[in-house]
Amino acid sequence: MTASGGDTQHGIRRRNLARVLRTVAAQGPLSRPAVAARIGLTRAGVAPLVDELLRAGLLVETGRAATGGRGRPGGELAVSDRGPAGIGAEIGVDHLAVCAVDLRGRVRARVAAGAANRHSAPGPVLRRLSALLAEVTAGLSAEGLRPAGLTVAVPGLVARGSTTVLHAPNLGWRAADLAPDLAGATTPGHEAVLPLTVENEANLGALAELRLGGRDGRPAPPPDFVHVSAESGIGAAIVVDGQLLRGARGFAGELGHVPVYPDGPVCDCGGRGCLEQYAGERAVLRAGGVTAEGAAAAPAGPGARIGLLARRAADGDAATVRALHEAGTALGIALAGAVNLLDPQAVVLGGALAELAPWVLPSLERELARRTAVAATDGRGGGPLVTVSRLGADGPLLGAAHAALQAVLDDPLHSRTPAHSPRN
Amino acid sequence: MTASGGDTQHGIRRRNLARVLRTVAAQGPLSRPAVAARIGLTRAGVAPLVDELLRAGLLVETGRAATGGRGRPGGELAVSDRGPAGIGAEIGVDHLAVCAVDLRGRVRARVAAGAANRHSAPGPVLRRLSALLAEVTAGLSAEGLRPAGLTVAVPGLVARGSTTVLHAPNLGWRAADLAPDLAGATTPGHEAVLPLTVENEANLGALAELRLGGRDGRPAPPPDFVHVSAESGIGAAIVVDGQLLRGARGFAGELGHVPVYPDGPVCDCGGRGCLEQYAGERAVLRAGGVTAEGAAAAPAGPGARIGLLARRAADGDAATVRALHEAGTALGIALAGAVNLLDPQAVVLGGALAELAPWVLPSLERELARRTAVAATDGRGGGPLVTVSRLGADGPLLGAAHAALQAVLDDPLHSRTPAHSPRN
Repeated sequence: MTASGGDTQHGIRRRNLARVLRTVAAQGPLSRPAVAARIGLTRAGVAPLVDELLRAGLLVETGRAATGGRGRPGGELAVSDRGPAGIGAEIGVDHLAVCAVDLRGRVRARVAAGAANRHSAPGPVLRRLSALLAEVTAGLSAEGLRPAGLTVAVPGLVARGSTTVLHAPNLGWRAADLAPDLAGATTPGHEAVLPLTVENEANLGALAELRLGGRDGRPAPPPDFVHVSAESGIGAAIVVDGQLLRGARGFAGELGHVPVYPDGPVCDCGGRGCLEQYAGERAVLRAGGVTAEGAAAAPAGPGARIGLLARRAADGDAATVRALHEAGTALGIALAGAVNLLDPQAVVLGGALAELAPWVLPSLERELARRTAVAATDGRGGGPLVTVSRLGADGPLLGAAHAALQAVLDDPLHSRTPAHSPRN
Repeated sequence: MTASGGDTQHGIRRRNLARVLRTVAAQGPLSRPAVAARIGLTRAGVAPLVDELLRAGLLVETGRAATGGRGRPGGELAVSDRGPAGIGAEIGVDHLAVCAVDLRGRVRARVAAGAANRHSAPGPVLRRLSALLAEVTAGLSAEGLRPAGLTVAVPGLVARGSTTVLHAPNLGWRAADLAPDLAGATTPGHEAVLPLTVENEANLGALAELRLGGRDGRPAPPPDFVHVSAESGIGAAIVVDGQLLRGARGFAGELGHVPVYPDGPVCDCGGRGCLEQYAGERAVLRAGGVTAEGAAAAPAGPGARIGLLARRAADGDAATVRALHEAGTALGIALAGAVNLLDPQAVVLGGALAELAPWVLPSLERELARRTAVAATDGRGGGPLVTVSRLGADGPLLGAAHAALQAVLDDPLHSRTPAHSPRN
């Protein structure tokens, strides 16, 4: 009589391998007894799991090099800086970017290129992205790394578990399946198809926050937060109990189309007075008096045009400062609705928005405080804590690369041989 | 070596008792083999669990009366209509109500009384509620029922797991702990303290929808929905994967204070232009030209004043029809924000709002459709399905009574002797 029929020996072993790998990845280097203690297994139970992960090249013993031998059993364990690499890619309105992250979380390769993707057909954009992917992966094998998966960040709606961008208003894409054009792109000359995931960029920014928060002196995010990011549009990701809230179809987090002034200007989405009409990149550039030529002169890469705004504001340009103040007000009104609905512990400004925080935050926080007073009964005096992501515009790209590694962390031995696995 | 140290024999047995009871409660009457099949245990594994639940009086054999004996082992099992009863209570701005529900989900007692609770101190309100509770529970023992728990629905914020109403703006309560005044209220003359839960009324309305949806010809709710209810204020409950999203502190769902027209009238909460300023009961009564005397003449019970509005609208009163149309517009704007953020499958109009649906829905649906177009890429043509709860104004009270029974369903044998259990 068992309460959970799925607990086969095989299933338990697979889960325990994942627990060992994730524990060492998050907290290592660790001794074998420390690993056992942290996951609640005996040392005898942990030993064969560790051996298997060492054989697979996913773990290494930090004592090995020093002793010159096969490593002491009492040596410390760390995840390998060779082996699987997560490949993250980002399709922005004005740029393309690709990076590779190893199991230790280090960025091992990164390229970015300016691009005029607004209202460009998917085909040419994906061919350029494939070339960047090939450039990044070509360099990996020299370092003993192999791509374990590819996650692509897009500024649009993606149905849960699908590789199809259903609607990306700022790219002008509808129902664009990225799989055919990206198949095999990262392993030129191979038959193998790499596991491909397509995901909204705001969700990946929040995942980066969850994955990288607490590392390298960054503050760990609370389990419940709303992550707001801006690329060309404005998106949010809602994290509840450390998990992304994706919505019934995967479309949750469309903060950019929350009505702010219901009788305001008509939005591309068909609504009126949506947040993007006041705090979207185009609206702020226009309100700040930046010409199309000025915007086009920004360098390539994530957040480039927002960087232009930040420089103008830092230089004291009055129109830009005023435009950012108004954007903060609109963001505060929309976020007040989100906070009243969701009661998060924090609101994190991420993506390219992080760079604008000095000029956006004061008006944002004022609106949030006055409009979330009912919820402010814990004595903190109005609204949740607003924090600024230290990952900034790199968040979605880093989140994509980390998401691509997740399959290895969830199922270390299955996913270590992508060449033999069908795309999942 | 075990992956889940909490799986003791005792824990597994307790969970399996709960699974048997919940299965029979939801799908009974069922034969023993049918129970075994539904929960994936062997017939030999189920037999002792069923015997224990029969001995505790939580299950009965439907064949027992017919055969006059101890029941055939092949007889069908049903939950008892004697034994534990969940007691639900509701503190409204204009009414108090109490009901008792048995394990079969039948309402076995119900009382309601008009009350002038707006800005009344908690003490007198809770003394009147205690008298109603005593009236309901006094009648239960004659029917072989005993109170298993008490859940109180309040129109305000309650911290997770607490019995303290942190803020109920329409009652004027702040930091009011209901436990001291309600302790022992339902078991006069007994030392025993009944498990007490205090919960926001919108959350309980949504729980009623989850618990009673699909019964008696009602449609089953989808796993992801937003439940909107109105008593004096407007509240929402957010259900994700069949579970309430409560927020970090338990304050999620404050739809009434989502900004609709950010420069609108000042709200009690300190914000401006909140939804309640346009679609709250007082705002609609005022806009519909209902005088204070007219409103006070409404009969007692949940939704009485809203019933008054519905009658005036049904009679064709132009001011009321216009006021409800405007309320629907404001609801649609606020819900468009919620839908863009949460991507639910449905929006359910519940509580007293259900009765106003004929006059509120057209403008609500129009706003929702035009403002959620980005999310409407699945071809359904704008916004999620808006449905009207068939439970109506009774939802929160019924939800409270069912919530009070949940402890029995979750842990049948522990909770069957509340006289020996400390308050949890």
